[in-house]
Amino acid sequence: MQVNAYAAPKAGAPLAPTTIERREVGANDVLIDIEYAGICHSDIHTVNGDWGPQPFPVVPGHEIVGTVTEVGEAVTHHKVGDRVGVGCMVNACRECASCLRGDEQYCLNGMIGTYAATDRDGTTTQGGYSTRVVVDANFVLSIPEGLDPAAAAPLLCAGITTYTPLKHWDAGPGTKVAVVGLGGLGHMGVKIAHALGAEVTVLSQSLKKQEDGLRLGADHYYATSDPDTFEALAGSFDLIINTVSAGIDVNAYLGLLAVDGTLVNVGAPPEPLPVNAMSLIGARRSFAGSMIGGIAITQEMLDFCAEHGITSEVEVIAADQINEAYERVLASDVRYRFVIDTSTI
Amino acid sequence: MQVNAYAAPKAGAPLAPTTIERREVGANDVLIDIEYAGICHSDIHTVNGDWGPQPFPVVPGHEIVGTVTEVGEAVTHHKVGDRVGVGCMVNACRECASCLRGDEQYCLNGMIGTYAATDRDGTTTQGGYSTRVVVDANFVLSIPEGLDPAAAAPLLCAGITTYTPLKHWDAGPGTKVAVVGLGGLGHMGVKIAHALGAEVTVLSQSLKKQEDGLRLGADHYYATSDPDTFEALAGSFDLIINTVSAGIDVNAYLGLLAVDGTLVNVGAPPEPLPVNAMSLIGARRSFAGSMIGGIAITQEMLDFCAEHGITSEVEVIAADQINEAYERVLASDVRYRFVIDTSTI
Repeated sequence: MQVNAYAAPKAGAPLAPTTIERREVGANDVLIDIEYAGICHSDIHTVNGDWGPQPFPVVPGHEIVGTVTEVGEAVTHHKVGDRVGVGCMVNACRECASCLRGDEQYCLNGMIGTYAATDRDGTTTQGGYSTRVVVDANFVLSIPEGLDPAAAAPLLCAGITTYTPLKHWDAGPGTKVAVVGLGGLGHMGVKIAHALGAEVTVLSQSLKKQEDGLRLGADHYYATSDPDTFEALAGSFDLIINTVSAGIDVNAYLGLLAVDGTLVNVGAPPEPLPVNAMSLIGARRSFAGSMIGGIAITQEMLDFCAEHGITSEVEVIAADQINEAYERVLASDVRYRFVIDTSTI
Repeated sequence: MQVNAYAAPKAGAPLAPTTIERREVGANDVLIDIEYAGICHSDIHTVNGDWGPQPFPVVPGHEIVGTVTEVGEAVTHHKVGDRVGVGCMVNACRECASCLRGDEQYCLNGMIGTYAATDRDGTTTQGGYSTRVVVDANFVLSIPEGLDPAAAAPLLCAGITTYTPLKHWDAGPGTKVAVVGLGGLGHMGVKIAHALGAEVTVLSQSLKKQEDGLRLGADHYYATSDPDTFEALAGSFDLIINTVSAGIDVNAYLGLLAVDGTLVNVGAPPEPLPVNAMSLIGARRSFAGSMIGGIAITQEMLDFCAEHGITSEVEVIAADQINEAYERVLASDVRYRFVIDTSTI
């Protein structure tokens, strides 16, 4: 099946319209007419070649929302007409300890990314900047009614990336959570942490987005460019979610943690972060990392967001604005997520 | 009260006999006739000035075992004739969240070290390389019957330093624990992890002490100088206790952790450890630190050790061998802890 798509033909080249082949709908597959696809910073890193060689042409997009138009004969929990979503992975081995535990994102045999990955049948996956996609039903999420489909798309990556560590490290009533960076990930982290009942502080480079941060659910907002911030907040937080993928002074942030607190990186800075062991030992602190979430917790997150009326703040664009949107993401000029209306592809 | 002691008169100078003043026994105090004092690497760092300026003369020693010879009028849970121990701290504020939770070692107002610290009454604390010590009863542990007093002394630092993280991070039946370094701390970690029911692997620079390691309770023993070790054991461990206070390739050790595994440093290398965020993110791993333990868990550890017949492997020395023992500790020429017979002071 030939479908329309926007692809990067080679590393660093602008994305352009093309057609790609999707596989026939197998017994366990779902065919989705894509309505919206979010633009994630990872898309840009991938097509720019920042993360190594890629199987070009690459169709990015792993924040996909659409409607089911066909299901394979063995599919029971999705049906034609359902609104569904696909996130960062479309397959995994389903047999290893991680998969059996519901942590398919940590599949010990390698989870299969939604694009630029080699699927278990040997084909190369292609993402959501396209009009239709065929995905194994086990990796297709249900989008609850009441969630705006465009604004729900970023939940599939930005939402789950922040929801999982917040839940894993027990954010909730009585806990103090800081979110570093108020971008695509950070603004979701603030909304979700607030809905979980935590006391939420935004740590942003400047106070430029303070009004937004407080509106989105933050209780406090501090500028990290002000050294007083690190004195005023020393030993304060049970959990810090760092969404910034540039390097940070990790010891300064560890110093903001209370005893037994955890700093979780969800972004991956290119350079190693030098950690002073005493920053950890002196208060039994942890420096951790977290990557998206398994299928079950992703569905849980979508249901939680529907219950709490949470979606992403989005700017919907047409496909011919993708390259300009990439420039604006790189310039941090987006509040807070671009979402492509894929009917324009 | 004047008591005999061995002190370092200034940074880097050999320790020599002297006398020091101990305070009168207050209402909440216990006077202890010291029998044994372990030699910890920290003692050497402190008197060498590796950890900054110190209030010389310094009497080191925070692995103290002795017998109660006098108690203050308000003391109820220790009595004359009891065998008792004192570890790394002799006071804390007892009012902050950490103290109230039993984590006096993380006292938010600063725990008071057993030596070279300023106590809450303004005096400078002096440690266990001496014949008698006066300590607040709340910081005095009971040494259970059946524990050899000389071999029990190192439990007060080396024992609790490894016991606390093993318990905190749930080492037990079904978990795989690695202990990095088979020295004073490491050999206690192996014994305790084994007694807790974990599957224990020693990661040592060479196989020199392999026979010892297996005898002490390790199930497996690998040389970290062999690069194959890091391939063979990739993704294996739920918990790694790193007792080495020299720098390590922290990303290589993080790679040995299973999904959700934790690497805990109990030693503090002088240089920062460069952590690749991807080492953490790719499997939700944590890099943490831990420092000794609170009073309640220290007593729990002593009782656990008595129940399981665990003490340190020690070489008992006379006081005039302290300086030579320091040289041998620095040369890793001790199996596994020097303990001073303080009757020789």
